Order: sequence, then structure tokens, then C-alpha cells
Amino acid sequence: MFRHTDYLQFDVKPEKPDPVYAHKLQELIGGAYGEMTVTMQYLMQGWNCRMKGKYKDLIMDIATEEMGHVEMIATMIARLLEGAPATDSTKNAAGDPVVAAVLGGMDPQQAIVSGGGAMLANSNGVPWNGSYIVASGNLLADFRSNAAGESQGRLQTARLFHMTDDPGVKDMLRFNLARDTYHQNLWLAAIEELKADGLEDTIAPDDLLDEEHTEHATSLWHLSDGPDADKGRWAHGTAPDGKHEMGFLADPQPLGDKQSGPPPDPKLYATYDGALGEPSKPAFGTEKGVMGKIKDAVDPDPTG
Amino acid sequence: MFRHTDYLQFDVKPEKPDPVYAHKLQELIGGAYGEMTVTMQYLMQGWNCRMKGKYKDLIMDIATEEMGHVEMIATMIARLLEGAPATDSTKNAAGDPVVAAVLGGMDPQQAIVSGGGAMLANSNGVPWNGSYIVASGNLLADFRSNAAGESQGRLQTARLFHMTDDPGVKDMLRFNLARDTYHQNLWLAAIEELKADGLEDTIAPDDLLDEEHTEHATSLWHLSDGPDADKGRWAHGTAPDGKHEMGFLADPQPLGDKQSGPPPDPKLYATYDGALGEPSKPAFGTEKGVMGKIKDAVDPDPTG
Amino acid sequence: MFRHTDYLQFDVKPEKPDPVYAHKLQELIGGAYGEMTVTMQYLMQGWNCRMKGKYKDLIMDIATEEMGHVEMIATMIARLLEGAPATDSTKNAAGDPVVAAVLGGMDPQQAIVSGGGAMLANSNGVPWNGSYIVASGNLLADFRSNAAGESQGRLQTARLFHMTDDPGVKDMLRFNLARDTYHQNLWLAAIEELKADGLEDTIAPDDLLDEEHTEHATSLWHLSDGPDADKGRWAHGTAPDGKHEMGFLADPQPLGDKQSGPPPDPKLYATYDGALGEPSKPAFGTEKGVMGKIKDAVDPDPTG
Amino acid sequence: MFRHTDYLQFDVKPEKPDPVYAHKLQELIGGAYGEMTVTMQYLMQGWNCRMKGKYKDLIMDIATEEMGHVEMIATMIARLLEGAPATDSTKNAAGDPVVAAVLGGMDPQQAIVSGGGAMLANSNGVPWNGSYIVASGNLLADFRSNAAGESQGRLQTARLFHMTDDPGVKDMLRFNLARDTYHQNLWLAAIEELKADGLEDTIAPDDLLDEEHTEHATSLWHLSDGPDADKGRWAHGTAPDGKHEMGFLADPQPLGDKQSGPPPDPKLYATYDGALGEPSKPAFGTEKGVMGKIKDAVDPDPTG
Amino acid sequence: MFRHTDYLQFDVKPEKPDPVYAHKLQELIGGAYGEMTVTMQYLMQGWNCRMKGKYKDLIMDIATEEMGHVEMIATMIARLLEGAPATDSTKNAAGDPVVAAVLGGMDPQQAIVSGGGAMLANSNGVPWNGSYIVASGNLLADFRSNAAGESQGRLQTARLFHMTDDPGVKDMLRFNLARDTYHQNLWLAAIEELKADGLEDTIAPDDLLDEEHTEHATSLWHLSDGPDADKGRWAHGTAPDGKHEMGFLADPQPLGDKQSGPPPDPKLYATYDGALGEPSKPAFGTEKGVMGKIKDAVDPDPTG
Amino acid sequence: MFRHTDYLQFDVKPEKPDPVYAHKLQELIGGAYGEMTVTMQYLMQGWNCRMKGKYKDLIMDIATEEMGHVEMIATMIARLLEGAPATDSTKNAAGDPVVAAVLGGMDPQQAIVSGGGAMLANSNGVPWNGSYIVASGNLLADFRSNAAGESQGRLQTARLFHMTDDPGVKDMLRFNLARDTYHQNLWLAAIEELKADGLEDTIAPDDLLDEEHTEHATSLWHLSDGPDADKGRWAHGTAPDGKHEMGFLADPQPLGDKQSGPPPDPKLYATYDGALGEPSKPAFGTEKGVMGKIKDAVDPDPTG
Repeated sequence: MFRHTDYLQFDVKPEKPDPVYAHKLQELIGGAYGEMTVTMQYLMQGWNCRMKGKYKDLIMDIATEEMGHVEMIATMIARLLEGAPATDSTKNAAGDPVVAAVLGGMDPQQAIVSGGGAMLANSNGVPWNGSYIVASGNLLADFRSNAAGESQGRLQTARLFHMTDDPGVKDMLRFNLARDTYHQNLWLAAIEELKADGLEDTIAPDDLLDEEHTEHATSLWHLSDGPDADKGRWAHGTAPDGKHEMGFLADPQPLGDKQSGPPPDPKLYATYDGALGEPSKPAFGTEKGVMGKIKDAVDPDPTG
Repeated sequence: MFRHTDYLQFDVKPEKPDPVYAHKLQELIGGAYGEMTVTMQYLMQGWNCRMKGKYKDLIMDIATEEMGHVEMIATMIARLLEGAPATDSTKNAAGDPVVAAVLGGMDPQQAIVSGGGAMLANSNGVPWNGSYIVASGNLLADFRSNAAGESQGRLQTARLFHMTDDPGVKDMLRFNLARDTYHQNLWLAAIEELKADGLEDTIAPDDLLDEEHTEHATSLWHLSDGPDADKGRWAHGTAPDGKHEMGFLADPQPLGDKQSGPPPDPKLYATYDGALGEPSKPAFGTEKGVMGKIKDAVDPDPTG
Repeated sequence: MFRHTDYLQFDVKPEKPDPVYAHKLQELIGGAYGEMTVTMQYLMQGWNCRMKGKYKDLIMDIATEEMGHVEMIATMIARLLEGAPATDSTKNAAGDPVVAAVLGGMDPQQAIVSGGGAMLANSNGVPWNGSYIVASGNLLADFRSNAAGESQGRLQTARLFHMTDDPGVKDMLRFNLARDTYHQNLWLAAIEELKADGLEDTIAPDDLLDEEHTEHATSLWHLSDGPDADKGRWAHGTAPDGKHEMGFLADPQPLGDKQSGPPPDPKLYATYDGALGEPSKPAFGTEKGVMGKIKDAVDPDPTG
Repeated sequence: MFRHTDYLQFDVKPEKPDPVYAHKLQELIGGAYGEMTVTMQYLMQGWNCRMKGKYKDLIMDIATEEMGHVEMIATMIARLLEGAPATDSTKNAAGDPVVAAVLGGMDPQQAIVSGGGAMLANSNGVPWNGSYIVASGNLLADFRSNAAGESQGRLQTARLFHMTDDPGVKDMLRFNLARDTYHQNLWLAAIEELKADGLEDTIAPDDLLDEEHTEHATSLWHLSDGPDADKGRWAHGTAPDGKHEMGFLADPQPLGDKQSGPPPDPKLYATYDGALGEPSKPAFGTEKGVMGKIKDAVDPDPTG
Repeated sequence: MFRHTDYLQFDVKPEKPDPVYAHKLQELIGGAYGEMTVTMQYLMQGWNCRMKGKYKDLIMDIATEEMGHVEMIATMIARLLEGAPATDSTKNAAGDPVVAAVLGGMDPQQAIVSGGGAMLANSNGVPWNGSYIVASGNLLADFRSNAAGESQGRLQTARLFHMTDDPGVKDMLRFNLARDTYHQNLWLAAIEELKADGLEDTIAPDDLLDEEHTEHATSLWHLSDGPDADKGRWAHGTAPDGKHEMGFLADPQPLGDKQSGPPPDPKLYATYDGALGEPSKPAFGTEKGVMGKIKDAVDPDPTG
Repeated sequence: MFRHTDYLQFDVKPEKPDPVYAHKLQELIGGAYGEMTVTMQYLMQGWNCRMKGKYKDLIMDIATEEMGHVEMIATMIARLLEGAPATDSTKNAAGDPVVAAVLGGMDPQQAIVSGGGAMLANSNGVPWNGSYIVASGNLLADFRSNAAGESQGRLQTARLFHMTDDPGVKDMLRFNLARDTYHQNLWLAAIEELKADGLEDTIAPDDLLDEEHTEHATSLWHLSDGPDADKGRWAHGTAPDGKHEMGFLADPQPLGDKQSGPPPDPKLYATYDGALGEPSKPAFGTEKGVMGKIKDAVDPDPTG
């Protein structure tokens, strides 16, 4: 359960309106690496965490913090839109390139749909969606996604930091940059801790190594003609997981058969000349189609 | 430019058809962490790489490999669908729970739309889309995304490995698991190399640390009541970046003003009682709206 | 079955082209509250109406009218795009801010994709989609959605009315505003009529009131610190449904247990330290997993 | 800024797992009328509210409550998935229709992607997205959308109430039904209060009535042949807004000209035979295209 | 403007309910090649047609017909859902595989969201969207898209024809198949007529042939190792346009330079080692960045 | 399996940067008819082709070529973005309309998200998605889709050709136009060859003609009042398939019953007054609901 205070986590005080920048700032609220994403990613990870204690508590702390960041960006956008020329027509651009830039660079939906407020969309107006988040239950995989997400998010914030010279906007972004720095450190530390606690190892997930074809777990397949791919650490020496020697496969050859589909079912009307053999006829009666085959596998002697 | 051979990278030979599994396997081709995602993510990163040499060459090698994995999964799905009861009606389930499971668990579009082949969609039928990928130009941020993506991908493959007992399917997955293991090691090694080469440091991007509000770059804001959030390494000691001491803010308070938007423009019809002051009137003429303010900032003395 | 005449429902005669406005007007054709939405929402509601007579007939009348509105907006957009500088390059902006505004503010797809016509998308270019509509079969819920949709639609039309000074465009919008006024009145009247006819009461749906936990059906949970939430009619007196006294819960406390998931299935690789008890092992054989439990519930004595 | 407690708003205690129901329950978390929608709709409305006081405070109370409902449904789904046969293959259905139903009716992503937890998607696996919400700044329009949303949400909850016989699930739903009842009453009461406070009238927005073509604001256009459309209150008497007499237009005729686009720009390659006159030639030089026309409108005498 | 009659274009009378088939039939209403697509594709083409007369009139006839097909499929789905076990729980599958198939194979949203009616979505529940249609203004390109769309649509209908043995459903599909046959013939005939009328030639669009690099307009680049690609008519003889001789390029070589991006702007934080030269510095002042370069191109002597 | 060379298929050398054009060019990489679409459409068709030999080999050749076109457009976009004013603020537009046009017309995500590179999205920023492609297994239907796709793609390229005067951009487009010309010829030739080989006839699919209601396979239903619809070849003479005489139905009448749904299930809460008869009660026990009816159909005498 949540509680809310109207006071913002940090100051959100632009010195002057800037509707073009309000458009760009949408990326930080509704982009794939914006505040909505980290909020919902952490909430779902926290609720899906299968241990009591420090990891779950940590995730919920950060998730709750991020919701306050959505609030900050939404507020900043509304304030940057103050007095935006939402209701001026094209000809008002005559004689004034700044007006022209604003008319061209505004987000139409910030005026038409939300009446001067933020949208839940990115800087191109594409609505935020739930496929941006990941909460797999595996904390190593998820913390890597979190560290990656905070890296992309801080990168975008850093770029946006240079797209304005408004001291109030920059002041808020200095706070966001700092939190993103801490959050990167935090998830990197949490990855170390997972290993220290013996919960996860280096490869996610870590207990199928003996099932996999080990001979294919070690080398770079050289399939593009750039000549320097073998110059890096990934092609030599012990792997970061400490369990494999890494190498370079200079001229990899296909190991499989020729690509093809099975002969088609005539009732599906795939074009066919018989080249792959008899057409496939699924049957539930006397003929043996897929169900027959599955049933055979389950019960090899149906008459027994 | 690309070239293609019809021979598959590895064997793709299911022992028997299984349309329910063919449905689930869609996740590995068109899911957010499926083969299409890594293919396009690496291609775009490679094309967007701003250095000649080992990093670019590495990325293009892996990108080209992943395209062959899309091919393998698409082929596996087609082969698992051989003779699927695409054209049987509901009543055929009478007396046979396996048929019932198949009729319920098939992907309708694998029959109706693609005629017995894979779709470019996930295991719930949602089409793959370009927002799943990231190619930011910043190699540290991107390699973290790559390591995270390979972790999620291998995790999903591992789960799918347990959902079948078909030896042919399992054999292919043993290869995929192995490659995902190598790819995790590879991106982790590449992250180390970026630092060793002096190209990127621990925090992405790494040169705005002096701009940010450092006092907010260090501590966990405790906003959820789980009691153990301060038990982890993220709340104590030196941060992984070596530049911050990490701490715990047990009772964080809001640092900003009260959340509010500016007074509305009457022509946008936001409900208003004047509580925030005079309504905002944008103007291009005598009144000073946003454009006037921006112009003032640009040219403080328009009559000068 | 439908019939069509080429004559438009109302005049669509812009005085002059305006490609920036043509971009904004996309919101009224392909936005969440545009004409496509009301057309398809009413069609699906009408086809899904489970009564013969006035309600179904009403819905089909309005649905058929709205299709004509899609036609009007599509025509207006094409006419506003006449001679748009679709094929001019950036440098043509030199010396002319109006050209600059147009180059920046045009919808690229209106030229590249539709060759000077409307797209089936909103003012940010996001395609219209079927999740914008609702047709639940419950007329009270749906008529409320209709009244809400017409309110949002008229609001957007009113905002767009102020974004142009073209008398021909404004003339068409005066007609659209009028129809939206009537449609709001219409759905509000239809809601009254549903109650007068004894078909639906105030709460949708209205016959589960005796199933629900009544003690939680009456009061505002005060979870945000704004001090005036109890000043409104929603916190005092008889509810609009005439069946509840409304109140205010000043300090609501959680009524449930602590949030947690169940112990994980090891084959799903959720990180786990045993804190929630034994890992869950689904079984179809001797062990009792979920299926065993479900079967127990169905047939408590399988050997009986 | 937000705070969180791990204790749930209400009990979430299913008696037994039911993965098929866990699939259906996704609608309440990630469907167009699920808990994510009301959470984000109310948050954005609250942040975008342009008045201090009771309305803003009310919206934030409810928004904060709804976030706790997302948490409840996510937790219920995880608990219903305990021991789900995520890792069983198709042939396990042999001999057991309940297993068959579960294999067919499960959400594959709840196992493959989230490892036994909820997805941020609806019951068909389509991710939740930001276009489901509306926050227009106009409280009358938005409160109508809220009342409609709560009606659709309670309707779906009521349907889901009948799709299970698990007493623990039903107990939670009894709470959700009750809250949805209160929320419907609440928004209906708030609509009354807006009018009582003189902030909004019956038609949203309410101050353009004198601009619109009043003669078209009153009557039902009879465009479908159902004979009873004029039997309802919407075709007779005073409108709910008290400002119009409602009527019936039995044989509406088109009032506009014939539908057509303008002559095409040859560089856009629309097929053309000259039927609409000279092709349109945009020009920035001597010829007068759209820019010339716009410039004329702005400055009728460019040589003056 | 449109008019509607309640009578259906053709009989829609299933003999018995079949909720699994009702799920599959969604493809014909909301799939990429379903009735919504052809309806909206033809409407937008008709409204965007830049000639008076037979082509525009033809398109509008067919568009209006297709709307009636949406109505037919929506009605069929509702009738197939009569008495569907929407409100039964999983355990009801015990002992009855047909029930199991139905519980697994139903569309949950057809019950939860639409209350027993069709959704505006495909057979996997993905909402229909506006990007499925095309209306380019070029009739040759669009008529090809129409012929292709009708081909895919009829193919899907033919597959669905074999997935039921309900005589009433099959009767309706016999009508749909027939109309799709006519529509294929119709668009193929219209393509011939465009050429006969001298409006379009074989290649769309047909008047840039002299601009293109003709030497690359004739031969198949052999980039995959399948040995028979040169056995077809596309590698020999006169092209269908009558203007090119077609050939085969057995060993195509790249004609371009090495792939690379430009040196990055430091403020965008792309990882960089200087390998591509000096970082790019955009400037509006003394330095010459992109704007300076563009201005040079426009006005080579700014001081002149 | 694929291999890659860093050398581009053709020269990609813009003379100068142009960020507005870089925005528009997104349509050719991530639009519905851009290079991603043809790449993935052909790959999936090739992998799904059910014959060995020339058709499959052809498709794979072209698919592999198209991947190189994605690479070319992505490279061109990055080069056009060199030094783009990504990090300049709105006021820099003062005094310079070209800057204004650029600030308004840039794609914000090309700077914020990809750091000066292409996105996998169209010219309005909507991500490319898998529903743009089709691979049905039926080569006639698919080759028609391919010819249509190449027509739309070349049309868009032709429009973009006129939107720039950069000789380097135009040079690349001359190559793309030429390839699109060949590809149109190629798929048209392949359609002829399918018929010559006796694999497919004119109507897709071609073997259900005797099942369909032939009387409805021949005439244009005249449902819109444009008077010239019968003037074309589609209303007279032998159809292109050589098997039907085409005609004109001047006054088509509905052939079906009145549109209605079945009586609702009370537990789904559709508003109902009994007009359609007794409410539907699904049953698994003594009452006969849908399952009873289905079981009757399967086994008419369950006691026999």
C-alpha cells in the first residue's frame, strides 16, 4: 500500500517556459528508459521477489523513489508549457523564427489532448507500454537489466542536459543525474552481493552449464569481415565466469542441415510441388497425423 | 552487405511435432529478449559505432551470428507444426485430452496467417517491435544492455528447455544455451576492456559527475517499510565506481515545493478557479506570453 | 448493410491550405477520442446490443452518422494539404519563418505515405487502434463511456477551434461542436432512460451489491496529504446511488497480509534462499503439485 | 513523493492455485480498464489539476489507493501460479482433461518471461499502454471518463467473480467490487459538485455554445433503418443541459458538397487525369503555391 | 455520408455455438487482412482518389460493401459465443476434454471485456490498427495492395473454412469466399484498365525511370547459395515492363565504401577514440557546424 | 547462416548534413514499406517456402540483398545527422529560419536515444513491428504482396527523391529506385512463372472455387451513389481468371436476416429486457448449455 505527499522530491522550477524542450522531455517520462519504466520495472520485480529481506526491501525502496521522479518530470513539463502558443495558427510564424521553431517543434498532443500537461508517451508521441519492463524473478538477470536501464536513462538525461540553458531545468537534471549515478552504483553493488551471498553466479541462470554443448560456449564466430574482432579480451584467456577459456573461430562453418520446412498440409494451401515428400495429413482416425504420433509417444501400444 | 547459405548454424531436428511447444517457442523469435531483438540491437549498434576496429568488428560478428539464430528458431517452429491439427474443429477433442490441450494451446495465427510457419511475434502473439532494441552510441551503456539481454534470453531458453522432453529440441537448445553463455561472458569481458582501454569508466556516461548534485549521488532513500534495505553493500562503503561513499537515508523528506501546474490558458479549457493566479495568455502582440518571454531572454532590449 | 453517398454531411471548405493544421487535425480522425473511435465504438455496441428496439436503433443511427464525420475530417485534411511543400528541402526555409514552421510542423507521412491525404493516425502519427473502443454489452457502462468520449472529443475540437483562423475550417468545426453537444445530451438522456425503464440502476453492474464487502463501499481512503479531500460531497451524505452513506477514512491502515509471492519452482530459476519455505514442485505423478491440488478439489477421494 | 508499506490493502489469499484463472486475471492489471489504467489516469489528472484544494486532493487520494490495487492483483496472480505446470510438456495432458485445460489456458509469458509472476499486460497478453488513460485538464470531461472507467472496471470484476469458485479469490474480489462501487458514486458526486461550485456546466467544455451551429445541436439524424430510434427521451423534450430542445430528423440529407481531394502535386505521383483542374505546384519563387497563399494572407501586399 | 439497414448482407446462422472457433474467427475481423482492413483501406483510398469518375466510384462501392462484412463477422462471433462457458472455473474440465479444449481455446476478452461479443482484434487478441492499411494516392500501387490483400484474406478464409464443420458457418464462408474471388478479379481488371487508360504503366510510379541508375534495374544479385535462383524467368528475357532485359549477377560485389558513421558530437556521449577524425562540433556562432554548412550552401557568401 | 562484409552495397555519401531529411528518411528504414519490412517479409517467406529450388532460392537472394539496404539507409541517416544541433536550445532559432526549421523538424529520438544514429522506427517515430510483414506459405498471395510492397516502397522513395537536392543522397536513391524497379519486375515475372509451372492459378488459393457460392463471385455491388462505377472493365466481360463473367448489381439488397446477438448470459451483465428470448444458461450438469449442445453433436445418444 502506498501513501503520497504533495511535496516534490526535489525542486522543479524552470526559469521560463520552453515548449520545444517540454516535447523532448517526454522521453524521460514515457520513453523506453524513462521514469515510468524504472518505476514499473522495480515494482514488478519487488512484488515478484521470492525472498524476504534485503533484496526485496531494496527494490521496493527504489521503486517507490522512482514514482516520485515520474511526478517531477510531469510537473516540469506542465511548467515548461505555461503560455505555450497552443492556440496560434501557422501564419503567426511570419517574421519570427523562434515562433516558427516552437510551432514546428511542439508536441501537438500536449495541447490538444492534455491541455498543457505531460502525456504518458515518449518524445515522438508513442505511448509508454508494458513491454519496456522486465521482471523475471531471476535477480542476477534483472539487476543487470536495472544497471543497463539506469545507464541508458542517465545517458539520455545527460544529452537533454545540454539541450537547454535554463538554470532551473538544469538544476533538476543535476539531481536526476546524481540519482542515476547512485542507482548505477547500487545495482552493480547488488550484483556483487548476489554472488557474495552464494545466490547467483556470473552466468544467468547458472545451473544449466552441464546441460549445454560446452564446446560452443567459448568462441567468437567470425562472420563479418572486420579484421580486428580477435583483438579483444573476449577472444582470449579465461572468461569472466572463470569457467571457460575464450577463443576465436576464424572461419565458422554451418553445423546443421539445409534449412527447410516440412511438407505442407493441403488444407493450408501452401504452394507445393511435392519436393519435400508426401503432404502432411493430420488425422484423428485411421490415419496417423500429429495426434497419432503424440499418442504413440505417450502410449506406444494403444491396443495393449 | 550480407551473404547467406542455406545450411543452418546448428541442427534443428525435432523428434516429433508439438504445436503447443511451437506456440511457446515464439518467445525466442519475437519476444522482447528473443533472437530478433539481439540481431537488430547488435546490427544497429555496429552501424552506429563511432570507432574503427575491434569493438565494431566484434559487434558485427555477433549480429551476423544472431541472424542465423532467428533462422534456426523459425525452422524449428515450422518443423514442430508438421501435421498440426490446424483444420480440426472443437468437437474432435471429445475423448482425447491431448487433442484438447493442442486445440487450446495452439497459436491460431501459426495456422491461419502463416500456414504452418513461425510468426514474427512473441508467445502471446504480440508482434515484435523496434522499441525492444537499444543502440545509443555509448558502448558502456549498450554493452550492459547486451549483457542483460543475453541473461534474460538465456533464462527464457532455460525455462523452455524444461518444457519439452523432445531430444531433438533439447539438442538445439543445448547449443543456444551455450552460445548465450559465451555471449554473456563476451559482453562482460568487453565492458572490462572498455575501461582498460580508457574509453569508458564505471558510470555511463562518465564525464558529468562534476555537474551533478553530488550529495544526492550516494544514498539509498528509504521509502518502503521493509526493514532490511540497509543490510546490503549498496548502503555502505565505497561505491563500485570508486568515487562515492554509499549510505542510507533512513527518513528521506521531500526537498521540493508543492506539486502544481501553472495557471491554464483559457482556450485550453482546463477547469480553473483562479487558485494559481491569473490565467496564462500567450501573445505575439502587445501582451507578453511565452514567446515574449523567450524573446526577452534572447534579446533583452528589443527596441535597442 | 451500408449505403453511401458522395455528398458530405456538411461543408468542408477551407479558405486556404495549412499543412501544420492538417497535422494537428489528425487527432480528430485517429486519436483516442477522434471520429474513428466513436464510429467503431458505436458500431460494436450496436451489433452487440441484446435488445431489440429503441436503444439498438439509436446506437446504429449515431454510429452511421459518425462514419460520415471520419469522411469529413479526411476530406478537410486533404484540402488543407493542397500544394503543401512536401517536396521542398530544408534550405528553402532560409529567409522565411513561415516556411520554417511548415517544414518543422508538417506530418512527414501525410506526404511520403499517403501522397497528400489523411493517415489513420493521431496528431503524433501513432496509428489508430482497436483498444480505444469499448463495447461491453452493458448499456449503462457503455453509455457512460460514450458520454465521456463525446466530452473529450468536443474538448479537443474546441481546442483545435482556437488553433486556426481559417473561416472555412471554423465553419466545419462549428458543426462538429454542435453535434458533439447533442451527442453529450443524447447519452446523458439515454442513461436517465435506462433507469426509467428499469433496465439499469446507478451502479454498473447493479446486481452484485449484496455480494460485495459493503463496509468498504462507502468511504474515501485518505492516502495523500492534501488537506481538503474531505471537503467535497463525496465524503459526506447519501451517495448518488441512494444506497450508501459516504464517508472519509482519515487514516486508512492496510487490512491485508504482507506482500509476497509463493516459493518458486526451481525450473523457473527465480533467485531463492528458501525464505518462503520449500520450493514448489509441480507434479503429475506421485508428487502433488498444482494439478494434484486441483484434482483433489474436484475429486477429494480419487480412489473412492 | 510516495511512501510504501509491504502490507497489502486487503487480503489476497487464494485457497488453491489456478493458472487458467491467473491468465484471465491479467485483464484487471493490464487491461484497458484495469488497475494500471486508473492508477496512471488519476495520477496524471491530479498532477495536471489547475486548482488547489478539494478536487486535486481527492484525485491524489484515489490515485494512491489504486496503486495498491495493482499490487494486490499482481500478488494474487503470483499466488495463483504456485506450482503451475510451467515446465510440463504436451503429452502430460494424456488422460487428464484438467491438465489439458491448464496447458491450453495458461499464459505462456507468465512462465517464460516473468517466472511465475504477473505481466504488465491484459488477458490476451497485449502490454498495457499509455493511450488507455486520459487526463485532459477539464475536470468534467475527466470525471466522466473516470465514472465510465470505474463502471467498465467493476463490470469486468463482476464477470471474473463468476469465473472462479475459490473462496479466497472471491473474498478479494468482494473488496474490489465494493471499492469500485464507491468510486462510481464518488465520481458521480464530484460531477454534481463541479456544477454546484459553478466550475463546469453540463456540456464539456461549456463556453463555446454560442460559437457552434445551434441548429445542428438538437436532433438525432436517423441514418439506420431501425424503426424505434425516436421512441426515446433523446428525441423529445428538453435536453439534460437545459438549453436545447431535442428532436428527430427523420430523413437527414447531406448538407455539404461532393467529397473530393484537391488536384495532386505531380511530385507525389497520385494517379491523375486532370479531372480536378490544374495540378498543384507548390512554389517559393515566382509561382504561388501554398506558401505564397499563406504569405498573401499574412501580408497582402508584399511589395508595399 | 452513409446509411445503414439492420438486414445483413448475407445469412449468418451457425447451427451451434463454438467458442473456440469464435476465437479463431477474430482474424477475419481484426487481423491484418481482415474485414476492418479492407474497409478502411478502401475508404481512405476512395476519399484520397484524385480523379472523378469510375475509379473513385468503384472504390467507394467496394468500401461500402466491406463495412457490411465487418458487421457479418461480428454477428457470427456473437452467435457462436451463445452460452459459452465464460463463467465456469477450471475444475469444470474434469472428465470432459471438450470442456478442456474450450476453456483453453477461448478468447478471455470476448467474455471479460465484450460480454459475449466480438473484439476489434485478431485471433491472438492484438487490437486492429491503422498501420494495416495503405492509401497512397497512386492507384497502381494501391490496386496491387488491394489484390494482394484480397488474396491473403481469401487464403485465411479458406483455411478457416476447413476448421469447422458447422453447416451454417460454412454457408456464410462460401459467400465470403465468392466475394473475395470477385474482388481479386476486380482489382486485377482495374490494374489492366489503368494501363489501358494511359494513367499508369507497369512500374509504380512510372516516370522516374530515366532518373534511376538503369544498370542496376535489371539483374538478380545472387547473395544466397541456393543453386537454382537463375532458373526462373526473372533472370532472363524481357521484363514484364517491356523496358528492361533481366539478368543474373552470379557474384555480386559491394559497390560502396566501408560502412561507418561520422565522428560524434561530444555532447551526445558516443564512445569515441578519434578514429574517424575530429569530433563534430555544431555551431551557430563562429564555428561552422551543420547550420553553418547549410547556410553556406544557401548563401555562399554571407558577407556579400 | 549469414556472413557480412563492412563494404556497403552502394555508395552512401551525402554532400552535407540535413537533419530534417534524416528524420523523413526514417520512413525507408522503419516504415510499413521500408527496408526492414521487405527484409523480414522475404526471410520469413523463404524459410517458410515448401519447395526446394528456384522459388526458395530466389526469395533468399532478395532477402539477403534487402538486409544490405537496411544497412545503407541506417548509414545515410547517421551521416546526414553529422553535427546536427541536437544540443541547442530553442532560443538559438532567433534570427535564423533554417535553424528554426531544423529545431522543429528533427527527430528528437535520433539525438536523445540513439546519439546521432537511425532508429528502428518510421518518419513519425512509431517503431517498426512484425505485423507489417506477411509470409503465408502461398506463393501467389505472397508474391502479390511483394509486388505491392515494392510498388509502395518505390513510390515513397520517389517522393523522397524530390525532397532533397543533395547530389549524394540523390545518387543513392537512384540506386534504390533502380532496385525497386527490378524487384517489381521480378515479382511480376515470378507470378507469371507460378502459373506457367502449374503451381498456382489466378485466384489465391485456387482450389475452393467449387465450394463457394458462385452466383456471388461475379458482380459489383453498387452501394455508393457515384454514377460511373459500371463504366470499368470490372463490370463487364470475362474476369481475369477466365472463369467468371463479371457484372454489375445496380441495386443490391440484403440477403440475410436482421442483425442481432443471441440472448445474453446473465452472469455477463449485458443489459437485457428479454426481447431475444430466454437468457442463455451455460451448463455442465443437467441443463443443456453450449457444452451439452456440442456433446450432442459429437455423440447424439450419450446413453447409447
